[in-house]
Amino acid sequence: MTPAEALHQKAILIDGLNICAWDRAIFEEYRAGGVTAVSCTAAVWENFRDGMDTIGQWLRWFETFADLIMPVHSTDDIRAAKARDRTGIILSWQNISPLEDRLDYVRIFKALGVGIMQLTYNTQNYAGAGYQEATDSGLTGWGRELIDEMALAGVVCDLSHVGDRTTADVIAYSTRPVAFSHVLPRGLLDRPRNKPDDLMLGVAGTGGVVGLSLFAPGMKNGNDSSLADYVEAIDYVVDLVGEDHVAIGTDFSLGHPRPGPFLEWCNLDKGRARKLTEFGSKPVRKPRGIERIRDFPNLTKALLDVGYSQDRIVKIYGGNWLRVLAQVWEGGPA
Amino acid sequence: MTPAEALHQKAILIDGLNICAWDRAIFEEYRAGGVTAVSCTAAVWENFRDGMDTIGQWLRWFETFADLIMPVHSTDDIRAAKARDRTGIILSWQNISPLEDRLDYVRIFKALGVGIMQLTYNTQNYAGAGYQEATDSGLTGWGRELIDEMALAGVVCDLSHVGDRTTADVIAYSTRPVAFSHVLPRGLLDRPRNKPDDLMLGVAGTGGVVGLSLFAPGMKNGNDSSLADYVEAIDYVVDLVGEDHVAIGTDFSLGHPRPGPFLEWCNLDKGRARKLTEFGSKPVRKPRGIERIRDFPNLTKALLDVGYSQDRIVKIYGGNWLRVLAQVWEGGPA
Repeated sequence: MTPAEALHQKAILIDGLNICAWDRAIFEEYRAGGVTAVSCTAAVWENFRDGMDTIGQWLRWFETFADLIMPVHSTDDIRAAKARDRTGIILSWQNISPLEDRLDYVRIFKALGVGIMQLTYNTQNYAGAGYQEATDSGLTGWGRELIDEMALAGVVCDLSHVGDRTTADVIAYSTRPVAFSHVLPRGLLDRPRNKPDDLMLGVAGTGGVVGLSLFAPGMKNGNDSSLADYVEAIDYVVDLVGEDHVAIGTDFSLGHPRPGPFLEWCNLDKGRARKLTEFGSKPVRKPRGIERIRDFPNLTKALLDVGYSQDRIVKIYGGNWLRVLAQVWEGGPA
Repeated sequence: MTPAEALHQKAILIDGLNICAWDRAIFEEYRAGGVTAVSCTAAVWENFRDGMDTIGQWLRWFETFADLIMPVHSTDDIRAAKARDRTGIILSWQNISPLEDRLDYVRIFKALGVGIMQLTYNTQNYAGAGYQEATDSGLTGWGRELIDEMALAGVVCDLSHVGDRTTADVIAYSTRPVAFSHVLPRGLLDRPRNKPDDLMLGVAGTGGVVGLSLFAPGMKNGNDSSLADYVEAIDYVVDLVGEDHVAIGTDFSLGHPRPGPFLEWCNLDKGRARKLTEFGSKPVRKPRGIERIRDFPNLTKALLDVGYSQDRIVKIYGGNWLRVLAQVWEGGPA
């Protein structure tokens, strides 16, 4: 076994965002890729009842695929997944649409396992603006109440698709660590969905994490990017915010055809209105060398090859997320 | 301390049905009455979203009144409530209306704490007939699927307000213990809501429990009944089905004015259609001597006075429910 293989086998690897067409083959690939836990998108535009139906689907999957996956409600569950050779599933939302107008539903969905909620997906909602609004409302009054409620219920606030001003407002307002679960640095490629240095520093300042995504069009070499570009993005953010605040959030969408109905639905505002981006139909690659979940061991080798210590890789892979989840879910130490 | 007081303090007391206007005073009375755990009605006619709102209310109460109550998801939680001097709350439904048409919602609500569901409240629904239907459909096809789903999810089926034929069908079909959570014997007073001997024997035959209610109009002395009539009802059922299958289910509705909007809503079919009984507006007493939760110690004394052993009282108070809950919730031994 190479040192990279040994490290990969030892480390707790938390993938901070996936939005796959999950089935047995994908759950098997999590095991093959050494993924200890993964944050799985359980809402994009769903309303309350449709959001509940998705939970119902996951509760069935937890039974059907109990040989491969298990639900995660706590950091102990993540450690148990590692010990039991299962992939722990953190249910997460890319949008708070299933809350509709009810703050009470935060704790209901939290009790059902939704441990991470992104404040908004691309556009304006009751809480704030997505990054595609021309004018960013900032965090609204109801949005502040929501942040309070999420803190009480123990739900991590994700800001990946959120507008810059709303993001800055949340960073200033939140008493708990917040996350960019799946982003790339604007410092390497200037586009609205990439995040500027000051907001990455802001997220780190809350004690949170910046998870680097594999969205090749967000890297300077676009769809021609390779693992080296991903490592460059990680390294840029490590230099900026420090190794205690960097994480992995691949945005793998395995199993969804592109173009295809699911990703096109994601790319319409509210799932039904105007088209917001072309990424539902244009080719979108992952960097060469890390195109699928099973390629994760390549990343471990690449990070060792650029001289990262085992300690640093263990932090980036899972240690930093474990700290944030312990703080937000369990009121653990900062 | 008298022997009755000592026994009352020692025993795990599970009240198998309450439908109160809960507030701090009532939770304090649970402590004063020595109630270890109580099954609290969290749905009568509510649809899916309204049923969820009720869950949301309880999740808030669990925080607001954490000094008095705690949620029960397992039999260990009931023992923890006893040890911690709290009253454990078992969320339960008198009707499956919040499921609407979705079997998946059984496990969603179970995950939120709903551990007991009555198949129907008084009238016909998708699963079967209530006791007030002139023609009892029996358990429907969907009803059988529901019973299967409840068994898988670990939810106790309550049959108190269910029609006789549907009840017999469930007893024959269920692979798990079922319950009459709050009933009185038809053998002492012939009225449709009271249960005939054969169905009580049937429930016991599943390994389940027959919980005796304090609904005085269901006793032969009506609103003039006293604790002696309640003890008579308990004793009738102990003689019939044996001490391993008898339990307590008071049906306390403290805090709801009678007549008043809540109980009148309960007495309309679906909460809005024709009036089903006069009990929402007529005077309905509890037997003298056990008119409130805090009077529970009087029952302990009365049962000792008629010669019941401590062991028998411990079974009727909580031991039998603990066995049923362990079997249905946790797959425990019969």
